[in-house]
Amino acid sequence: MKIRKEVMELDPYVPGRSQDEIAEEFNLKKKDIIKLGSNENPWGPSKKAIEAIKRDLNTINRYPESDLTDLKEEIAKYSGVTSDQVIVGGDGADELIDVLAKVFMNPEDEFIVPIPSYMYYEFLFKPYGAIPIYAQWDLDSNTLDIDSVLDSITEKTKMIFLCSPNNPTGALIPQKYIIKILETTDAIVVVDEAYFEYSRVNNVNLINDYPNVFIMRTMSKVLGLAGMRIGYGLANAEMIEYMHRIKPVFSLTKLSYIGALNTFKDKEYIEGSIEKGIKSRDFLFEELCNIKSLNVLKSYSNYILIGVKETEFTASSLSRELLKKGVIVRDCTSFKGLDEYWIRVSIGTMEENKKFISIIKSILQ
Amino acid sequence: MKIRKEVMELDPYVPGRSQDEIAEEFNLKKKDIIKLGSNENPWGPSKKAIEAIKRDLNTINRYPESDLTDLKEEIAKYSGVTSDQVIVGGDGADELIDVLAKVFMNPEDEFIVPIPSYMYYEFLFKPYGAIPIYAQWDLDSNTLDIDSVLDSITEKTKMIFLCSPNNPTGALIPQKYIIKILETTDAIVVVDEAYFEYSRVNNVNLINDYPNVFIMRTMSKVLGLAGMRIGYGLANAEMIEYMHRIKPVFSLTKLSYIGALNTFKDKEYIEGSIEKGIKSRDFLFEELCNIKSLNVLKSYSNYILIGVKETEFTASSLSRELLKKGVIVRDCTSFKGLDEYWIRVSIGTMEENKKFISIIKSILQ
Repeated sequence: MKIRKEVMELDPYVPGRSQDEIAEEFNLKKKDIIKLGSNENPWGPSKKAIEAIKRDLNTINRYPESDLTDLKEEIAKYSGVTSDQVIVGGDGADELIDVLAKVFMNPEDEFIVPIPSYMYYEFLFKPYGAIPIYAQWDLDSNTLDIDSVLDSITEKTKMIFLCSPNNPTGALIPQKYIIKILETTDAIVVVDEAYFEYSRVNNVNLINDYPNVFIMRTMSKVLGLAGMRIGYGLANAEMIEYMHRIKPVFSLTKLSYIGALNTFKDKEYIEGSIEKGIKSRDFLFEELCNIKSLNVLKSYSNYILIGVKETEFTASSLSRELLKKGVIVRDCTSFKGLDEYWIRVSIGTMEENKKFISIIKSILQ
Repeated sequence: MKIRKEVMELDPYVPGRSQDEIAEEFNLKKKDIIKLGSNENPWGPSKKAIEAIKRDLNTINRYPESDLTDLKEEIAKYSGVTSDQVIVGGDGADELIDVLAKVFMNPEDEFIVPIPSYMYYEFLFKPYGAIPIYAQWDLDSNTLDIDSVLDSITEKTKMIFLCSPNNPTGALIPQKYIIKILETTDAIVVVDEAYFEYSRVNNVNLINDYPNVFIMRTMSKVLGLAGMRIGYGLANAEMIEYMHRIKPVFSLTKLSYIGALNTFKDKEYIEGSIEKGIKSRDFLFEELCNIKSLNVLKSYSNYILIGVKETEFTASSLSRELLKKGVIVRDCTSFKGLDEYWIRVSIGTMEENKKFISIIKSILQ
């Protein structure tokens, strides 16, 4: 077998652990586990979406429609664009990252990622032979180091990933920074707005002025559909058309499509999820700030990054202690740009938050 | 925007037409349309799978599990392999074709496709800069022209696609041909068994003897889950491990996973679908053979390829006449290796088959 060198260089595959395995190892009941590790919406999906899915279950022997016209129209309305400026991804936003690579990246081309940020950009781009160039996120001020991005731009730069609010640090990238970058290069600037609803801020206004901006979003967060793998992208119609040439035709499942369509129509659910999410985050932030040994970063998203260097724990040992008591958080040791002292905690329901705060206090005292 | 040349060369995107649009244009009721165009299971999905999906609808705000251990075990049992010889694809088998490209294909590498065959191999491989080399399927004898495959093999050949039963011609590739090809080259030989259940023949025995064979399958056909986009592949554990390094982690939706798991457990549903499918195909074949102007190819699958050259129609004009009367078939004009006189008809329920036969007779008389 002649495996490509890009694949040989990747780490061997280690399957994730299921909740059942975690429950068994730590002798927990699966229903008692508090999931604060994946930035999901803890209040569940839209009930109207669930009802619509139920009505269509008997047709899943048929292929999905390929055009998705009405879904694109709903997304356009929700986002304030036209439907020819919308592309839908069938594996969350991750499929769109892959499509971006296919449309724009040749081997040896460079892409810029300020670190720490979402690690999956790199996972998806490396198989194309594209080269990651790391810019910096300043952790002390929790802001993008804009100069480190500008200094990284070369003739080989084909794409720049800007995550706002940034995962895992939680802060926003000011629009003037994004504009400065857009005006410095004709590389594609991907603004990852997976969590934008929690900040009430977005950058959609840029797509009519800048042909090289791509706004990337997901339904896995506030919109409550992580399990159904739906993402979407917004850009000028020309870029969208090229992306459609290459996007897999049927990658969105029939039930994902129905769930997505009916969630966008359920305005009450969306607004409720945003309000509860912001309240939950602000509660968590205040409570965590009261624990003196933690370095709690201000967040505009549905997770909070916490430095634990002043405690007796590393991220790994603290995560394990939390797991023993039934709380899953994200140990951020594997994030490039973070040392071994950071964990990321997603918002939970208020009940989950209170339990988590009580558990982490008991561990740290 | 600097679009890659491989993408510039692709045809512009034309969205597929929805059933609603077809119903409107031809003044049909959507429920009266007979879908014989996409080789689906016309009897619907497993009822046990539907019930299991219903029970889990409220958890779709959570990410899917990434390990899929129990699903791989069910597939292994169904296929007669071990679970480390299984990989699951989250966009039907299409995702696995893309993963194969990422693992094995460098720009300028060649892949061989006997034509006519499934067109999507080429669609997915071209963006990688891989070059299609066309071998031949002999339509008169409805057999693979094995010499045309062997003659096409060069040092640049990295993959060979053998679809058995072949879509759209319906015939099987004898295993001795597959072995001959496997022994001639160390290129990966993909045996696409999307429709193998309808033939009661498979080639799984080869994976322990040949490190370069990859058996590719789907749940979109006899297993009744086209709308949920699930595929799987079988090969030696080493190839599977490399593919897992690169496969998107969460591409199978939560409901697809549950539907898949519970369909494989529903042996009665599977066996019933195969038996009804074979009966339906044999009925259709006999009835079509009675129409003298049609050239009907013997099929071991759930569709039948029909030459219409002796009628007054082309594939395009006949498909349109059928559509006017509410029957969707596949006009094969766009298949490489076929001229403008072939349509492909999927099996329907017996009621649908009878209606279709009566309609096509009325058009041809």
